Amino acid sequence: MDTESLYPPFTVGVDLGGTTTAFAIVDSVGHIVRRGVFPTETPTVKVWADRLSREIEAMVAEAGLDDQIDGVGIGAPCANAVTGCIEAATDLPWPSPIPLSQMLESRLGLHVTVSNDANAAAIGEMTYGAAAGLRNFIVLTLGTGVGSGIVCDGHLLTGARGFAGELGHVTFPFAADRQCGCGRKGCLQTVASAKGILETTLRMLESSDRPSSLRDLPVGELSAKTVDIAARRGDALAREVYDFTGRCLGQAAAEFASFADPEAIILFGGVARAGDLLLDPMREAFSASALHLYRDRVRFLLSGVRDSDAAILGAASLPYIKY
Amino acid sequence: MDTESLYPPFTVGVDLGGTTTAFAIVDSVGHIVRRGVFPTETPTVKVWADRLSREIEAMVAEAGLDDQIDGVGIGAPCANAVTGCIEAATDLPWPSPIPLSQMLESRLGLHVTVSNDANAAAIGEMTYGAAAGLRNFIVLTLGTGVGSGIVCDGHLLTGARGFAGELGHVTFPFAADRQCGCGRKGCLQTVASAKGILETTLRMLESSDRPSSLRDLPVGELSAKTVDIAARRGDALAREVYDFTGRCLGQAAAEFASFADPEAIILFGGVARAGDLLLDPMREAFSASALHLYRDRVRFLLSGVRDSDAAILGAASLPYIKY
Repeated sequence: MDTESLYPPFTVGVDLGGTTTAFAIVDSVGHIVRRGVFPTETPTVKVWADRLSREIEAMVAEAGLDDQIDGVGIGAPCANAVTGCIEAATDLPWPSPIPLSQMLESRLGLHVTVSNDANAAAIGEMTYGAAAGLRNFIVLTLGTGVGSGIVCDGHLLTGARGFAGELGHVTFPFAADRQCGCGRKGCLQTVASAKGILETTLRMLESSDRPSSLRDLPVGELSAKTVDIAARRGDALAREVYDFTGRCLGQAAAEFASFADPEAIILFGGVARAGDLLLDPMREAFSASALHLYRDRVRFLLSGVRDSDAAILGAASLPYIKY
Repeated sequence: MDTESLYPPFTVGVDLGGTTTAFAIVDSVGHIVRRGVFPTETPTVKVWADRLSREIEAMVAEAGLDDQIDGVGIGAPCANAVTGCIEAATDLPWPSPIPLSQMLESRLGLHVTVSNDANAAAIGEMTYGAAAGLRNFIVLTLGTGVGSGIVCDGHLLTGARGFAGELGHVTFPFAADRQCGCGRKGCLQTVASAKGILETTLRMLESSDRPSSLRDLPVGELSAKTVDIAARRGDALAREVYDFTGRCLGQAAAEFASFADPEAIILFGGVARAGDLLLDPMREAFSASALHLYRDRVRFLLSGVRDSDAAILGAASLPYIKY
């Protein structure tokens, strides 16, 4: 990429996943200047941190951006922005807690901000995406589970111990009969996650004989993704799955509004790819159930960050967090 | 009061009520230095603002505190901290909107902060009361209705248009059959307000023949206050009313924790006078229903601000708001 068309300052974003570690230099409007990737699996977290530091330093030197990096952001599962540690991560090859920001700061001599994926997504939307210019919004990440990042008055809420914004675990009557992995029943994520979509589909398929192209799929191929594809092709039952999910999200959003008075609620992640199939019933249910103060005042948007780079861009935006 | 034992800086708090306007000079730890009061009823809001300004200036001069007042805070119904205006107040003698902060700033030459009662209560608790030193807490004001002030990461949440923290209007299954004044059903305030206490009592009295001292009261004397008195005296039915209300508040608090990860939830206002009769079942229900991340991590407290001065102290604390 021609560095003439880049907008300083630059940050480094790191997406620490269970399988791979992806990292990139990103400019202030979300252009990826240079990127790299290596397998996360290493004998110890120390070896991983050594390698990441070396690779980042080499990448920065190659880009001719020495002394021009404003900070490093790391998005990681169970990462706590308050402590800078990874706490009790089950899908990383090393034992927790891991003092991530401290380990990288001492190696790189740069300020390192860590956060969980949902908070990184929220800051990513504010820095480069659908929330640019907004000071009050909620990002709901609809993936394997449901996470959230809440920005209120321009601040990302972290809370007493870094656990603010666990909106996937707010409970609702529409999910009262659904068991959540957290041990409780009724959590939003039992409906609005990829797993929730699958569960809703199975229930609808079982409770009637209505024809659906989904009935022809081998059981192993039924997933949120195949339901999404069927819905786009016009399958009525698949569309009803998203209609139900959207209405649930709209009711949930109505309650969330009473908390944060947001300008916008932004959907992010795999389940959000259904787009208007989800947003239209969500808007409708919100209007029907929100307190008059919020009705017609909240915009419902899809993530404005490129899907394939969302994790790395979210991480790269973390140095811009204002507490 | 001996000014030697006072702690600067000083602020002026104004409690603008439908009937009276109370105001006071308050020091940084909540001592009231001097106070005054006059009837709110005046021909126009301009006449009221002129009088308030004159009275404040005279009071400050008498106290020998000229040039030592750091700001003025006004707590008022429907006051919006974002706009500095009173919007659509139904219990003031003048038409809304009223540009309150602007009117007083031009007269007094001091910075004037306005806020609604619940937000003033939250800042009051942080400045002088039960939330001293806390950066993450929620104050629930249990009065005629239920209001709230949410402090997260040291900031009072205001939201896009000043309507963050309307937790009295979050809906719950335990109130699904109760009509709220907002036009919706299920709002927390239909249970946890003084009116909610009365409704619960009437339902319990009607649904059984259980003996209760409340049955002997003239209907006109049945109120949250008389139920509170009966409960303190050991009346089993009255105690069950508070037990039910406390359990509802505990379930609500469990959902609120998922937003804000608070260190404490503080009860304020008339209904909170029931104390442990409300707090014990609240704690129990919270433990039973909160996500594991919050269980045993949230303290439930009663307001630490003297009841009779709570409104004026809340107002006096408003200049300390950090956004």
